[in-house]
Amino acid sequence: MDHSLKETLIFSQKMAHLSKALWKSVEKDWQLWIKPFNLNLNEHHILWIAFQQDGASVSDIANYGVMHVSTAFNFSKKLAARGLLTFSKKTHDKRNTYVCLTEEGEELLLKTFETFNEQTFSVYEAGLPIRDLYGRFPEFSELTTMIRHIYGNEFVEGFETRLHDFEEGITVEDGELVFEPKTKMPTLF
Amino acid sequence: MDHSLKETLIFSQKMAHLSKALWKSVEKDWQLWIKPFNLNLNEHHILWIAFQQDGASVSDIANYGVMHVSTAFNFSKKLAARGLLTFSKKTHDKRNTYVCLTEEGEELLLKTFETFNEQTFSVYEAGLPIRDLYGRFPEFSELTTMIRHIYGNEFVEGFETRLHDFEEGITVEDGELVFEPKTKMPTLF
Repeated sequence: MDHSLKETLIFSQKMAHLSKALWKSVEKDWQLWIKPFNLNLNEHHILWIAFQQDGASVSDIANYGVMHVSTAFNFSKKLAARGLLTFSKKTHDKRNTYVCLTEEGEELLLKTFETFNEQTFSVYEAGLPIRDLYGRFPEFSELTTMIRHIYGNEFVEGFETRLHDFEEGITVEDGELVFEPKTKMPTLF
Repeated sequence: MDHSLKETLIFSQKMAHLSKALWKSVEKDWQLWIKPFNLNLNEHHILWIAFQQDGASVSDIANYGVMHVSTAFNFSKKLAARGLLTFSKKTHDKRNTYVCLTEEGEELLLKTFETFNEQTFSVYEAGLPIRDLYGRFPEFSELTTMIRHIYGNEFVEGFETRLHDFEEGITVEDGELVFEPKTKMPTLF
């Protein structure tokens, strides 16, 4: 009991500092990646979630994107003003507002994926030595278990399902990634 | 090669979302913890680093705290204005500015540790089932390896040394944590 008090503070401090260092690296690389598209990180994240889940509610976006509902709503409004997404109500559910990507929104998002350069993503580069050693990227099962505990089963399962669907929608042609569009884009494809 | 392009994007997306979720949880709990002391997260982090490394330069603080040098400098100035730390030059090194905690700064920092309540720290609570199962908190060796790759050996070794020294300076008396002071505080102890 006495020992665990100390262990608790040390473990908490370790987690706080490791997670800050990890996130600050990802945040910096993510911002640089999407800067040419005049998007900030929250806006890009919203487009991404709307792409993965057609008709996501603002509260879905806030939950899955780990942002305040007001942040999700305000940046969604900005994206709507740029014609990148639309708000709508479902006929059987008038209470919630749903967000749908427009063709322009999807086109912009897919362009960001096409320009993704893993060599500018430090966490990818940092995962390579582990991949070389074990033959696969780290799976972070303990970390995922902790996130399941913090945010709930639905959060992690939704994340894994959307990641899986996203992966299924990608094909590789001539060494280039091709993303299956979700909206109808006769002019683009 | 074709497969790895896709694997790369999926791994990068997974890391981006997991690290965001983890950090946002830590950030929220950290902010709530130190709010009663009228400190923001950067200010608390600066006091903590200055406590762990006597005479840290502003650039040390920026490095270890994973913040911009201007952020480290501006918040250090605010803390100095509140009498919580002082700036100084070393006699043999006039180029760098060093930060030293004042007795008031240390007293405030130790008070924050004394009020630390692990039950309000979700990452701690989320680590408990793993501790119950394996008999120890997760060590995140893969994650630490990646952070070593991103920030360098010195960053991780410095972090581990400071964490170890911090742990050594804590004793438990009557179920309460007692922190060994670094500055002279005859009135406090």
